[in-house]
Amino acid sequence: MAEKSKTSAVKARLPRGLVDRPAGEIKAAERMLGVIRGVYERYGFDPVETPLIEYTDALGKFLPDQDRPNEGVFSFQDDDEQWLSLRYDLTAPLARYVAEHFDALPKPYRSYRAGWVFRNEKPGPGRFRQFMQFDADTVGAASPAADAEMCMMMADTLEALGLERGQYVIRVNNRKVLDGVMEAIGLSGEENAGRRLTVLRAIDKLDKFGPGGVAALLGAGRLDESGDFTKGAGLDPDGIDRVLNFTGWGEQGSGSGSIAGVSAVTLSNFAAAVGTSVGGAQGVAELTEIEALVAAAGYSDRVRIDPSVVRGLEYYTGPVFEAELLFETVNEKGEPARFGSVGGGGRYDGLVGRFRADPVPATGFSIGVSRLMAALANLGKLSTEDEVGPVVVTVFDRDRIADYQTMVQRLRAGGIRAELYLGGSGPKAQLKYADRRNSPCVIIQGSDERDRGVVQIKDLALGKALAATIEDNATWREARPAQFEVPVDGLVEAVRSLLGGRP
Amino acid sequence: MAEKSKTSAVKARLPRGLVDRPAGEIKAAERMLGVIRGVYERYGFDPVETPLIEYTDALGKFLPDQDRPNEGVFSFQDDDEQWLSLRYDLTAPLARYVAEHFDALPKPYRSYRAGWVFRNEKPGPGRFRQFMQFDADTVGAASPAADAEMCMMMADTLEALGLERGQYVIRVNNRKVLDGVMEAIGLSGEENAGRRLTVLRAIDKLDKFGPGGVAALLGAGRLDESGDFTKGAGLDPDGIDRVLNFTGWGEQGSGSGSIAGVSAVTLSNFAAAVGTSVGGAQGVAELTEIEALVAAAGYSDRVRIDPSVVRGLEYYTGPVFEAELLFETVNEKGEPARFGSVGGGGRYDGLVGRFRADPVPATGFSIGVSRLMAALANLGKLSTEDEVGPVVVTVFDRDRIADYQTMVQRLRAGGIRAELYLGGSGPKAQLKYADRRNSPCVIIQGSDERDRGVVQIKDLALGKALAATIEDNATWREARPAQFEVPVDGLVEAVRSLLGGRP
Repeated sequence: MAEKSKTSAVKARLPRGLVDRPAGEIKAAERMLGVIRGVYERYGFDPVETPLIEYTDALGKFLPDQDRPNEGVFSFQDDDEQWLSLRYDLTAPLARYVAEHFDALPKPYRSYRAGWVFRNEKPGPGRFRQFMQFDADTVGAASPAADAEMCMMMADTLEALGLERGQYVIRVNNRKVLDGVMEAIGLSGEENAGRRLTVLRAIDKLDKFGPGGVAALLGAGRLDESGDFTKGAGLDPDGIDRVLNFTGWGEQGSGSGSIAGVSAVTLSNFAAAVGTSVGGAQGVAELTEIEALVAAAGYSDRVRIDPSVVRGLEYYTGPVFEAELLFETVNEKGEPARFGSVGGGGRYDGLVGRFRADPVPATGFSIGVSRLMAALANLGKLSTEDEVGPVVVTVFDRDRIADYQTMVQRLRAGGIRAELYLGGSGPKAQLKYADRRNSPCVIIQGSDERDRGVVQIKDLALGKALAATIEDNATWREARPAQFEVPVDGLVEAVRSLLGGRP
Repeated sequence: MAEKSKTSAVKARLPRGLVDRPAGEIKAAERMLGVIRGVYERYGFDPVETPLIEYTDALGKFLPDQDRPNEGVFSFQDDDEQWLSLRYDLTAPLARYVAEHFDALPKPYRSYRAGWVFRNEKPGPGRFRQFMQFDADTVGAASPAADAEMCMMMADTLEALGLERGQYVIRVNNRKVLDGVMEAIGLSGEENAGRRLTVLRAIDKLDKFGPGGVAALLGAGRLDESGDFTKGAGLDPDGIDRVLNFTGWGEQGSGSGSIAGVSAVTLSNFAAAVGTSVGGAQGVAELTEIEALVAAAGYSDRVRIDPSVVRGLEYYTGPVFEAELLFETVNEKGEPARFGSVGGGGRYDGLVGRFRADPVPATGFSIGVSRLMAALANLGKLSTEDEVGPVVVTVFDRDRIADYQTMVQRLRAGGIRAELYLGGSGPKAQLKYADRRNSPCVIIQGSDERDRGVVQIKDLALGKALAATIEDNATWREARPAQFEVPVDGLVEAVRSLLGGRP
């Protein structure tokens, strides 16, 4: 390949919303995913993975807040002109997988997978166009026990990752109840789809604006501090009361967003809010069953019924869940804020059925991997720092590279992470390199050492510690602290004991 | 979401060349990737990962055998009309990464990564449009010692995976030598690019057609058994001899493809073949140094200089490698065949330089993950079978689901993989389900057992073994072999001892 000239050089850059993953983050993710896998396996879930590309029609269009068609998904045409898309979540592909292999799978079918998903949307802080989700799904189980299991498994997962009781809550609501409330306030039917969406989005903002602001959004509209006006859902005062009472932020409740407030919410509130809606009543019955199972299993302090959970994806049909972290952190503006959601899910009884004549019940939970990693790092439960680097064998005599290579081989054979310096620079730069690699020590052998059958071992960590105590440069060079000599035959043992002394 | 009617149902299918990964395969891949990671880490390599999407111009066009432009890559336009592509390998994105973060990286920079890559080409048996590669790269090291290290690390990797000495060989050639041979036979210059490609492809077919067939491809052309004619490179007899002698398949050699034949090939052959080509001589010198380092490290029986290695990707500029498995297997036609290549790589000194004013030397090795998995499975070194499933707690009394759930919880708390049956079927179907899940045993508690404070444990594996010895159905039901009763409090211990007795 001909090398390009300076003027025609390609710029090394990534498209916006895409990021590289450095070593510390990859290793932290591996540890975290391993813990999650362990919990899911213990619950009887098995892994299954689908490719990143699917037929566009097989994925369907269920993304939240997509006002324009085709928005949100990366799509391209195949040779035969059929449209392909990068998956935008792991649920739609799983539905395709289950439908395709329906007869071969045991049912109920419990499965899990971690994988990259893509959203072709405007990226922002903490908002990427490629990100990882970790999903668990149970297909073929209509029972609310399957939803309850999802919520309890999620609680177990968070605790396995080091979160403490009280630092998180799994909040549970039901789309049927939300639909029932809509029906009760006269918003059923296709013609009210837009207003229903406005109501759902208003409920979703309770944490942010409080009941007063949300009441405005449910009514005529809300004027924010900057003077921008957001048009409301146009509900009458009775409708607004009904929605607010349902959420527990009305007269009866003091706010359901806080863990203290949740207990004030009762399922009787729900029953009142859905009125005579048949679907709504069914939703309340499902939540009642989930609550009973959760209580029987001793998870009432971790899994709570909470009317403010909405969830953005269109395909949910029943119970919806959200895992929320309750500890305080600092938001982009430097203000204290709760960490918030690290995952969620719900029941999607229609999704597999898109491919089949008969409906297939299904429920699932999806973890936002980088959000959860950020939370754990924030709590000091997951280190994304680089680990100790390899031992570096330096090259002081270029003709003897085979000898240095033999030393590296012996270190590795002794189970020690080690590398040969392969660059073209001199001794000083090699030490700087080892420092940059976060090496615990470097091995040096000049011709003098070779003749005497020894090697020098320079302890970089100890050297750094000592450097802080010695101020005089000349004294430093003279003393050569943290550097010692061992016979070549004792190299592996000496390095091993040096590493063994590390905290 | 409204459920679609039978007639409008979407067909559940994947685009061609894309496949799902079942549990056994995922777990086998995890184990294999873990072993590879372990070796790479010990060599001082650190993980780094790039996203799956890049700017098309950042990836460049280096795919082999792409006669049409844009062929081979999945591409789509971003909102700002810039072209994006799914990566077709892991090397081009790494070059972009290194160029982008050049000053922040230690140099030489050793890194590794496993990831999905995409080829928009015609899929075939064992040829997919999404597949996984596992790459290791050293950037910033011009020394052939870096290439030698790659080859030895690959040998160590294959042995760590269970391959034995003699079951594989890492073959090494040099693009500069190949170019030198071209120069020596008068095929230098842009105007001969097409003929050079024809010569390289001919060399690549030595294993398949032997020296006679390849001689025809180097000359006028070759007529195959079906009567199809492939136009040749049009070399004169002297040129053909020169190329064949170079490959070791000419008069001096008996074929370099077999491990026995390799030893017959000498570097003096190479020197003769490149004639007066300066680049060719440099290539021979590099191979000489690699051979010396490999010999000094004791890898001569695993890493061999071999002139028949070509490698398809256009970006290679120096040494090229191929990991070949030598044991026999059966090909698609049912004929015995050597397993062949499971990975390869080489030096790509120009790739990072595409983004910079100064050239940056680099070398790397890429493992074809599914090819290698297939090889290991073939040798019995990697099981892709499903493992033992979870213990299944059956639901005989639907009102008591909370009680059954408690049993499952206790089993899990005892470290036992266990699940609650969540479907809607009766006892018989639940046992069938457990069987399909490959469960070791099922737990049963009807009202009678509950009243007596006991549970039934049915040992499914033992049951299957006994079933083979009892022919009479009535006797079978009477005896209820492989089923026993324990007090509820003894459940966890009983299941644990049953599992402990498993082979």
